Amino acid sequence: MIMPKIGEFELIDQIRKYATPATPSTIGIGDDCAVIPQRDGLDTLVSTDMLIEGTHFLKEDITPRQLGWKSAAVNISDIAAMGGKPIATFLSLALPKTLPETWVQEFMEGYRDISQKHCVALLGGDTTCSPDRICINVAVLGTCPSGSAKLRSAALPGDMVCVTGTLGDSAAGLKLILSNDKAASPQLVQKHYCPLPRVQEGLLLGSCPGVHAMMDISDGVGSDLRHILKESGVGAVIDTDSLPLSAELQSICREKGWDPKQLALSGGEDYELLFTMAPDEKPGIPYTVIGRITKDPALVWKGSSRDFDGYQCFKE
Amino acid sequence: MIMPKIGEFELIDQIRKYATPATPSTIGIGDDCAVIPQRDGLDTLVSTDMLIEGTHFLKEDITPRQLGWKSAAVNISDIAAMGGKPIATFLSLALPKTLPETWVQEFMEGYRDISQKHCVALLGGDTTCSPDRICINVAVLGTCPSGSAKLRSAALPGDMVCVTGTLGDSAAGLKLILSNDKAASPQLVQKHYCPLPRVQEGLLLGSCPGVHAMMDISDGVGSDLRHILKESGVGAVIDTDSLPLSAELQSICREKGWDPKQLALSGGEDYELLFTMAPDEKPGIPYTVIGRITKDPALVWKGSSRDFDGYQCFKE
Repeated sequence: MIMPKIGEFELIDQIRKYATPATPSTIGIGDDCAVIPQRDGLDTLVSTDMLIEGTHFLKEDITPRQLGWKSAAVNISDIAAMGGKPIATFLSLALPKTLPETWVQEFMEGYRDISQKHCVALLGGDTTCSPDRICINVAVLGTCPSGSAKLRSAALPGDMVCVTGTLGDSAAGLKLILSNDKAASPQLVQKHYCPLPRVQEGLLLGSCPGVHAMMDISDGVGSDLRHILKESGVGAVIDTDSLPLSAELQSICREKGWDPKQLALSGGEDYELLFTMAPDEKPGIPYTVIGRITKDPALVWKGSSRDFDGYQCFKE
Repeated sequence: MIMPKIGEFELIDQIRKYATPATPSTIGIGDDCAVIPQRDGLDTLVSTDMLIEGTHFLKEDITPRQLGWKSAAVNISDIAAMGGKPIATFLSLALPKTLPETWVQEFMEGYRDISQKHCVALLGGDTTCSPDRICINVAVLGTCPSGSAKLRSAALPGDMVCVTGTLGDSAAGLKLILSNDKAASPQLVQKHYCPLPRVQEGLLLGSCPGVHAMMDISDGVGSDLRHILKESGVGAVIDTDSLPLSAELQSICREKGWDPKQLALSGGEDYELLFTMAPDEKPGIPYTVIGRITKDPALVWKGSSRDFDGYQCFKE
């Protein structure tokens, strides 16, 4: 157990060991605030995400290491979604006193692995105790050249609607986890636990003037695309026969009788990039065109008789 | 109840209504990240604090409005503690579906009141549902002139140890709340629920070269001062007879037989500023000298036979 062994300051020291070092001019863990130099010509990007035990994960289903990875990854993905470069994270952890003492260490290993992969420093946070459930909040900072952030409001009629990678893998992985059938596809389960934020792709897309609106897919295209349409005052026709589906997803859907389109559009947590782009732009990364932006503000699903929505926690 | 009435996006729209507007060049709620222009000659300050129902507050004891105020105030105080100007906050809220539907509105009223008082914009966050307890995380951004942030590591032997305001009021308020005796001093209870971050004082102290180390008092001087001593490699002699105690605190301590020194030094949550300062500095704000920094790394409490420590949640 944590409680009899270490106090809050020892816990902070333990977390500090896993903090990816920052640049010499930056001041991280140890003061009331982190201090980060600003520079003309850059914008600061900020986002934050909360993960609650029982809502976002079950302690029995995910290892601390996977949870640490995912907590950082979903935040880093928000910076990628704006075409930015992730710089630093701030980790708040509320932990029950009954956690095994190795928990923090393993959590931080996963957190460090994904942070190091993208050279993201851990510059601060908060540690406190929770009466029962684990509660995690990560705030992330990034940068992009002034005025170049890719917003949801920038889609134009005639744009292609595009996505990176494949859709629905994470949702299929979650279905396997919830039905206690992880062995059916460790690969899809891994996609759910350890998403890979599209940082390099986001930076390249961020530098393309023909890339207009962009966001990451956290709730599913069926939900996320609606934000772009609403903010941009446009509509879209999506060809549900052109969705990028992994061979693994198609195989498990055949085996289990699941609808791959449903998983790809309503599932969420793929953390792929969803972007709209002028037809003549060449971003130099692999992507799939899944539809087109229209002046008519409707959202039309071609190749399917049903509508697709995404995840909304209060509506479950 | 929230659940049957509104979904997550309606909740975000509701919160958005209370967002203090940002500058025209800043992009707030509605994208994956907020976007804030940088400027040569400034540093960005970042801090984050988490409040968990059952650890930091009991829903029955604090109104949503007080909780909203406090959530923003304790974070704004961290910026003040570095001598910085608070700019923006990011609010993560995990809420049980059983909360009364007015809860968010009242919470946001308190959050907005303290934010408006200090011209702090709400630029983003996260909303999610919690299986039972309310969980709040605020991340705060501020700025200060490059290199001017007041760190914990800057205390020098010979410095005076100083505090703003009075000590122990919040701790006494908490004791009254926990003993179901709020009526004994609404004033002290108010100090606990609605702390006033010392933003103006922090800015003035931040501009004084003779002000060396600084932090805010969240866990109590008995704990917080130790951070300054450790980071600066110095010690201190504190005169426990010189502590600034409000008349209200002295009166309730006489009435209840409480030790005012204990409340002032170990109580915490005063959110006053604790700073060390060259003896010839004149910061132009009211403050009290409570001791002196010494080369000898010990912490000595003059005028008391006991030691004083602060709050540490895992050690409770």
